[in-house]
Amino acid sequence: MKLSPKQVYDLLVKEDKILEIKGQIKFFLGDIDIIVKQKDVVGNIMQEWVQGWLEQKGVEYALSDHSQMPPDFFLNKKDKTVDLLEVKAFNRKASPGFDIADFRMYADEIVSKPYMLDVDYLIFGYDMSEDGVVTIRDIWMKKVWEMTRRMKDWPVNLQIKDKVVHKIRPATWYSTSRVEFNVFESKEDFVSAIEETVYQNPDTRDRAGTWRNRFVENYKKQYGVQLNIPRWNEIADKYIVPKGKK
Amino acid sequence: MKLSPKQVYDLLVKEDKILEIKGQIKFFLGDIDIIVKQKDVVGNIMQEWVQGWLEQKGVEYALSDHSQMPPDFFLNKKDKTVDLLEVKAFNRKASPGFDIADFRMYADEIVSKPYMLDVDYLIFGYDMSEDGVVTIRDIWMKKVWEMTRRMKDWPVNLQIKDKVVHKIRPATWYSTSRVEFNVFESKEDFVSAIEETVYQNPDTRDRAGTWRNRFVENYKKQYGVQLNIPRWNEIADKYIVPKGKK
Repeated sequence: MKLSPKQVYDLLVKEDKILEIKGQIKFFLGDIDIIVKQKDVVGNIMQEWVQGWLEQKGVEYALSDHSQMPPDFFLNKKDKTVDLLEVKAFNRKASPGFDIADFRMYADEIVSKPYMLDVDYLIFGYDMSEDGVVTIRDIWMKKVWEMTRRMKDWPVNLQIKDKVVHKIRPATWYSTSRVEFNVFESKEDFVSAIEETVYQNPDTRDRAGTWRNRFVENYKKQYGVQLNIPRWNEIADKYIVPKGKK
Repeated sequence: MKLSPKQVYDLLVKEDKILEIKGQIKFFLGDIDIIVKQKDVVGNIMQEWVQGWLEQKGVEYALSDHSQMPPDFFLNKKDKTVDLLEVKAFNRKASPGFDIADFRMYADEIVSKPYMLDVDYLIFGYDMSEDGVVTIRDIWMKKVWEMTRRMKDWPVNLQIKDKVVHKIRPATWYSTSRVEFNVFESKEDFVSAIEETVYQNPDTRDRAGTWRNRFVENYKKQYGVQLNIPRWNEIADKYIVPKGKK
């Protein structure tokens, strides 16, 4: 059967009661099996679990050949520009620890394939008890701009190693306490932040001059809609949470 | 029943045919289960598997309260100075990637508890196939000096971060190809290397003046044997593999 990402989410939550079921990781060797109590393992295997689930339900999907970039699943085999599904998971007792994408690859990707902006993120917030029982405490369906934010010196929250920009990292979108920066309000504002980062990042500055125009043009070709991307300096301040409200 | 580390090893190899059995790691959640294909997980769970195995066989053991330091298991509950068993595991297609112990803690430990030098290391060299099948390709029983070596600038192979000495790291004891430094030949030579490292390491130099005498004295109290610890500079060269023999 054919399902959209939203239908996958609904089926998981409403029919399969994903927030009520329990799980565990077991290691079998010879006659002995033990329960694995390592939380970080769960984060790396939810994508495979979703694949197993799609198989079991008989849901149509194709895998991406490019494991570094979203999406994990194409839910429409014939049209790989719609129903794109990316799976993420993180330990709900910590902050989201996953990467969204390599910044440079992502900035290039959404220009050449603007529909990649519309990937649906299926996010599992899991918990593992002392004795290894896995539960899904939260599940979200998000667009990329609903789960990202600025940081202090950059328009996008980035992992920066040795002064080099690496990955786009998620916001703590579900929490308002101790938050310094708001999640983006719209696709346009997110694209504005990406554009400013393309310019600010020495690694991508060579393409900054034409990035916005190329993006807007390709997006219009894809969807017939002329996006109005604000300049980052016009909107940057609204994404800082006033000190009193922290 | 009561077993020595050697008897544990023999039972695993000869009766339980550990080198022939297969295993896997599975994640169960709801109705779906998938095979986990992450090699590094195995390294962290063999100790728990050994505990499950000891339970199943009805072998007497007590756990250590100190998970950072060897041993993992006391196989004689009444005398915690004998039959000490430490479990290690590594991906046999790579080099041993585990830590032996924090250097400073270890140097202090073997002075105050010289029997800690005699811990038996049960080491699993595992493999995981593409489809997640775990096998034990090698299993060894080693004393610490049989699995360690010098490095270029230090008498012991150390993990050094930001110029600070951290962990004692293993040699590739089972290989003679591309090896630059030989494994220690005796307990005495290993102790000599530890003593020189106590001196060379700024973090432990304060105890270097008396370290050897305190060690020899406590060892004699424990075992009634006066160890003759050579000076490191008398033996250092024999642990360098001549270039032609590499």
